[in-house]
Amino acid sequence: MPEKAFQDYYPEYYSHCYGCGNKNEHGLQVKSYWDGDEAVAHFTPEKHHLAFPGYVYGGLIASIIDCHSTGTAAAASYRREGRTMDTLPPFRFVTASLQVDYLLPTPLGPQLHLRSRVVEIKERKVVVETDLIVEGKKTARGRVVAVQLPDHLAPE
Amino acid sequence: MPEKAFQDYYPEYYSHCYGCGNKNEHGLQVKSYWDGDEAVAHFTPEKHHLAFPGYVYGGLIASIIDCHSTGTAAAASYRREGRTMDTLPPFRFVTASLQVDYLLPTPLGPQLHLRSRVVEIKERKVVVETDLIVEGKKTARGRVVAVQLPDHLAPE
Repeated sequence: MPEKAFQDYYPEYYSHCYGCGNKNEHGLQVKSYWDGDEAVAHFTPEKHHLAFPGYVYGGLIASIIDCHSTGTAAAASYRREGRTMDTLPPFRFVTASLQVDYLLPTPLGPQLHLRSRVVEIKERKVVVETDLIVEGKKTARGRVVAVQLPDHLAPE
Repeated sequence: MPEKAFQDYYPEYYSHCYGCGNKNEHGLQVKSYWDGDEAVAHFTPEKHHLAFPGYVYGGLIASIIDCHSTGTAAAASYRREGRTMDTLPPFRFVTASLQVDYLLPTPLGPQLHLRSRVVEIKERKVVVETDLIVEGKKTARGRVVAVQLPDHLAPE
């Protein structure tokens, strides 16, 4: 049995996200996993996800960094409480701010690898830094400030 | 005849971008226009562009800010040289860094309005700040550092 991704533990209400919801059939379905203290995701863009011929669209890079980071924020919060991700209440983080630095053009074709570290963790706020690596080169760097979904936006 | 958008002046090679290329049939096809000294774009997300039920996916917001900003950087560079956008050589900017602050959840359904200002302009670097407005409320704020596409990535 393959390991379940962070996003596969999201309650149904939170599983429709275009970037990572496993119920969004039009979406990107980002899947994140622990690798020791880092969180990883692997993503192969579609041919139409280009900026110009041969290179990945920057908005796609921002999108996968975003979802991988909020997923990592949730997973890290369970870990901090000593809970597994199938326990209640669920953690669900949203993005307060997203910063992406594009260091090199990202070639379109090979699988992209995201590797994240939690650099700050509080009860309602988690900061995650991410490297985007393709063919051994770091082509982008992200920083996401994730905050717990406000109660008034959560389902009753 | 409706006014041509900034992106409709891009040479064919640059018209395949997932975010704004008018030749990318799978893409978002962001269209930007001058409104005085500000650049505007209007975009209505699809139903599947959600973060959770009722709200727009943050990665989509980052994507449309990104493309609207690089388009604005190009348009502003023509203006700076006193040229119209149908003259050569073409300007084409890519994103060096993208910052998005999500101020409020953005409701999914109504048209989104992007409104940008050029805050710094040099020959090869333009900084653009953008407000995302929906139903009269500013729900996100973006800042893009755009740089001219390096010569080695441009077509011969």
